[in-house]
Formats: sequence, C-alpha cells, structure tokens
Amino acid sequence: MLPPDFYAVVLAGGRGTRFWPLSRRNIPKQCLSLDGGPTLLQRTVARTGLPLERVLVVTGPDMVDPVRAQIPGVEILVEPSARNTAPAIAWATWEVARRGGTGCVVLPSDHIIADEDAFRASIAHAAAVAARGALVTLGVRPTRPETGYGWIEPVAGEGTDLAVHRFVEKPPLAVAEEMFAGGRHLWNAGMFVWSTRALLDAVRAHLPNTAGMLDALSAGAPLADVWGRSDATSIDFGVMERAGGIRVVPVGFGWSDVGSWPALLEVLQHGEGGVSVADAVVARRANGNVVHAAGKLVALLGVDDLIVVDTPDALLVARRSDAQEVRLLLEEVERRGLGRYA
Amino acid sequence: MLPPDFYAVVLAGGRGTRFWPLSRRNIPKQCLSLDGGPTLLQRTVARTGLPLERVLVVTGPDMVDPVRAQIPGVEILVEPSARNTAPAIAWATWEVARRGGTGCVVLPSDHIIADEDAFRASIAHAAAVAARGALVTLGVRPTRPETGYGWIEPVAGEGTDLAVHRFVEKPPLAVAEEMFAGGRHLWNAGMFVWSTRALLDAVRAHLPNTAGMLDALSAGAPLADVWGRSDATSIDFGVMERAGGIRVVPVGFGWSDVGSWPALLEVLQHGEGGVSVADAVVARRANGNVVHAAGKLVALLGVDDLIVVDTPDALLVARRSDAQEVRLLLEEVERRGLGRYA
Repeated sequence: MLPPDFYAVVLAGGRGTRFWPLSRRNIPKQCLSLDGGPTLLQRTVARTGLPLERVLVVTGPDMVDPVRAQIPGVEILVEPSARNTAPAIAWATWEVARRGGTGCVVLPSDHIIADEDAFRASIAHAAAVAARGALVTLGVRPTRPETGYGWIEPVAGEGTDLAVHRFVEKPPLAVAEEMFAGGRHLWNAGMFVWSTRALLDAVRAHLPNTAGMLDALSAGAPLADVWGRSDATSIDFGVMERAGGIRVVPVGFGWSDVGSWPALLEVLQHGEGGVSVADAVVARRANGNVVHAAGKLVALLGVDDLIVVDTPDALLVARRSDAQEVRLLLEEVERRGLGRYA
Repeated sequence: MLPPDFYAVVLAGGRGTRFWPLSRRNIPKQCLSLDGGPTLLQRTVARTGLPLERVLVVTGPDMVDPVRAQIPGVEILVEPSARNTAPAIAWATWEVARRGGTGCVVLPSDHIIADEDAFRASIAHAAAVAARGALVTLGVRPTRPETGYGWIEPVAGEGTDLAVHRFVEKPPLAVAEEMFAGGRHLWNAGMFVWSTRALLDAVRAHLPNTAGMLDALSAGAPLADVWGRSDATSIDFGVMERAGGIRVVPVGFGWSDVGSWPALLEVLQHGEGGVSVADAVVARRANGNVVHAAGKLVALLGVDDLIVVDTPDALLVARRSDAQEVRLLLEEVERRGLGRYA
C-alpha cells in the first residue's frame, strides 16, 4: 500500500486518433473500453487502490464532463490549455502538497497493466524510495527494440531500485537493438513517484518559470492568469533529464501503452478469430484479427489480420499492417466534410 | 403494356440464407434492400407496371405480414405449406382465371433487373405470344457457363420468340461451356407468361393430381383441405419440360438472381472500395469489396475482396471467395445456441 499521505495524479489529456472510430474528437483513448470492461481511465484510478479523495485527475476543459461521468466524485484539475506535461505535473504536485499530501504517484490514464497486484507493490516500493528524497520513475522491462519510447539507463548493478545513469530519448533502431540485447535498459513509461518536496525543489531548480507560476498561485493568483508563465515542456526533458538523484524501480507487471489497434493482440486474451470485444464471435478460417463490435454477434469467414471496429455510426475495416494509416483515413474523413464522424 | 386482362403472379416464398446477416429467418432475401432503395419484392411488383389490383403475391403463412407491410393493399395468396412451385403457380393461375383474367406473368420476387423498360417490353411481347396459346418462358442471354441454372435450347433460327427444343437442367461444366460458347442457349430465369387456359390445360394433361385439387377448389372445397393432393414438384419439371408448344422470348434487360453477396459487384454501380450501401465510404487502397452498412460511414483501409455486412445486432466480415460458406457459418451460429441471430 502507498503511505497514507500519498496521492495519485492521473493524467487524462490527449486524444488518441489511432483508435478511431471508437475514439472521437471528444472521446479520447483513455475514455474507451478497449476490452469491453471499464475504460482505461477507470481502470487507472481503480488500480491505484486509493480512496477517491486521494486521486486528482488532470485534464483539459473539454474532458471535464467525460471524466466526471466516468469517475463520479473525483477531483478534476483543469489545465487552462495544453502546455505539455511539466506544467500539469508540477501544478498537480503543488495541489497535492496544498492538500497536506507528502508525495504522489503520477500515472498516464491510457495504459493497460495486466498484473494489478504487482503494480501496487511496485508503486508502494517506489514510494518508500521516494520518501528518502529521490525522484523515482518506473522502468518497464523492454520486450522489443522499440524506437518510439524513451529508455532509461540505470547504473550497473542489481536491485529493486537503481540510480539512473541517463535517459535515452527515442533512440535510432541500432541503439534500441543494442540496449534491448544488453538487457540492462528499461522503458520510461511515464509513471513517476516522488515526494512533493523533492519534485517542487527540482522544479524550482530546473523550471524557474514554472516555479514562478506556483509561487503566484501560492500568493492567490488565479490559475488562468498565470498558467501561461509556465515552461511548456515535458516532465522528462524539463526535470527528469536534468535533476540529480533520480532512481528507477524496475517493474514487471505486464505493461502496454496500447498505441494502436494491433497492440490489443498483445494484451487481450485470444479467442476465436483473434482478439475481440463482441457479444459472440463465430469464425471459420480466421486468425489474428482485432475486432471491436460491442454487443454484436461477429462472424468471420476466411479473413486474417484485419482490424474491424464497429460503432453506432461508423465502421472501420483495415488491414492490420496498415493500422498506422488510420490517422490518414481520419484526415480524409475531415477533408470530405464528414467531420461529424471524426 | 400487358393486355388489360393479364395479371402478375409474384412468387415470394423462400429464404435466402446466403444474405445473412441481412437476411434472417423471417426476413428472406426478397424482403431486403440490397442496394439501399426499395426491396427486391417491392421492385418486382413495381416493375410490372400493373395496378395493384392485377397483382397476386404467393407466399407462405410466415410471410404474410412482411409482404403486407412492404406492399400495402396487395392481394396475398397463402400457400398452406411449401410444395415447390407447380402447385403454387397452378393455383395462382386458377385464381387469376377466377378473377376474370385471361393470362398472367409469373415472376420470382428476388431477382434484380437493370432495364425496367426493356423488361416491360419483353413481357408485353411474351403476352402477345401467349395469347396465341403458347406457354412462354423468358430466356436470359447467358454471360457465363453457369452450372447452377437450368438452360433452354431453342430450335435453330432467329426471332423475338422461338420454339423450345428442350430444357437442360443444371448441366455439367463441360456442357455449360459448350452451350455458352455456342451462343444459342438461354438461361431459364423462372419467368413465365401464359394464358390461364393454356396453363390450366397443361396442368390437366401433366399434373392430374394438381388438376384434381383445382377441380375441388372450383367445387368449393377449402384450400387447406385439398392442398396436399397437389403434385409437389417444380413448374419446370412438372409442366414446362413435358408440355408441347413452349416458346421462349430471348430477353436482354440486365438480369441477375443475385445468389450471394459477391453478385452485387455485377449489378450495383462501383464506387470507392467496391460496391456499397452506406451513408458514406472513405477508402485507401481498397478494391472489390461488397459492403452493406446502411446509414454508417464505412472506412476501408488496405482491404480487397471482402464482404462486410453490418446489421444492428450482427456483423459479417468474409473473404469474397468464401461467400458460399456463409450458410455453414449460419449453421454454426445455430449450433452454438445463437439462434436469435439466425
């Protein structure tokens, strides 16, 4: 369990166009149920194991109503505008401190985590490390030489937490392959644990404009008036890659950021025809398909490696290997004056 | 135009499982709108050009309500049970005679005909031939060596109507290819034109049990009591292949019996991604697909030669070349206890 004065800060901004047509302009990825159960946001909050009073959801103005509908009673911190993660996280950590919290766990709201008990054990351990003053990031053991993520290089050695030697942002493939083969590097999954004091000190040291915004808030200025003073940068670049005393807790709880439809093949249980959310699936000679047609009978016949996503007003049928082009298709939808479907 | 004492007899029995999931146990093919417009049954009645008082629809008890809903006010002849086409057609022709009609056009209700003006011209000509006493069948010019149809061999010669030398039922491929190459044979499309007297005489000559049923009806017996006396056979086998004086009117009005989803590629206009019934289609690298998703935006990405059929409770995605197996899939649906979708 987390210490009783720790909070969870759940980051719920962002769109996720790659899950269209299930995701829409006002229904971003974190508000989706990709497996037919609770939404990614609901699961993120639930898996912290914290009472709702110790959860803060940070999001944009458009998302207040959807978040409130999904997590009734949760406190929502509304960013006046999107300025990347550093201002949002610094402000939220400041809000935690203002409420008497001594530390927080910062969590993206659009990831899938398979083993929730292991997740809670990991953040509890990270909180114990953070209580000694470190900024802690969770490090996911890599399963492929992914070039789209940031990587973490710990100092040499073994342990349940390690000092971070350096961060490697979105490496070239050769570098990613080398790190993957070496077995020591970890993925930066954007999950952080720290004491409010350690993070706010680091913000003061490395993001003085953001610290100035927080000072103005402390002096009673309205957020809307001072938000624009903050440094519009990521917490990784603005703080983690600059501050000292960073530690990483290697974790093994089955993590995925489910970046697109095909990723569901890795995280959902396979059934007839592939993975599916449907009332029932009947398949003949069908494999490797990703199907989302909640409440329907889905019949698959002689089809492999497709993405099929059915919604009340739009239906996508795509070759799985073309999933990255769903964005382009969506642009075409807008260009055609079919924005009501976007 | 047909002579004023000619009727249309529209045959609206039959299921059409190959159009599942659009077709259902109680929504057979003829009740479907395959192109998003009126249903096949509605089009069949409309294209006769006859006032509704001169149309009789023959169907089974289960279909009375759907037929009435689709063609309000039409007279429906209800077969007590399915006994193939000969009893239904003989009875319907007898009913035409009883109403003072001198002849009728017998039409299946689940075909597509492209050129409706040409169709009306053909049946008008056939009616003129029939008025001279012949049983007339319309002969469709073949477009492939189809083994699933009956073929008609006219006597040698040219003309707008020809004597029939013989019928060839579902020929082996080699025979079909020979007939197709020869260019003289025609398809038997199940569309007939005759005077009531000629047909009833032929029934008396070749189907004495059925003639007995009609005599009993004339004597006032209830249909339900005598229906079982009729010969349960097809009009082709029971009458056309046995009677003399059969003539064929070659027709060229763009005919298809749309036996399965892929046939729509031959009869509907091609648009983006293939042929589709949808609110809109946006496609990238997609060809030869048959899509039915009424009212939806359909997005196709990198997919070819698929059948995609969306309904409120079931979604089929099939390889086009596997269309014949839709029946097997439907059997599997029933076997699984999912009969509510069948």
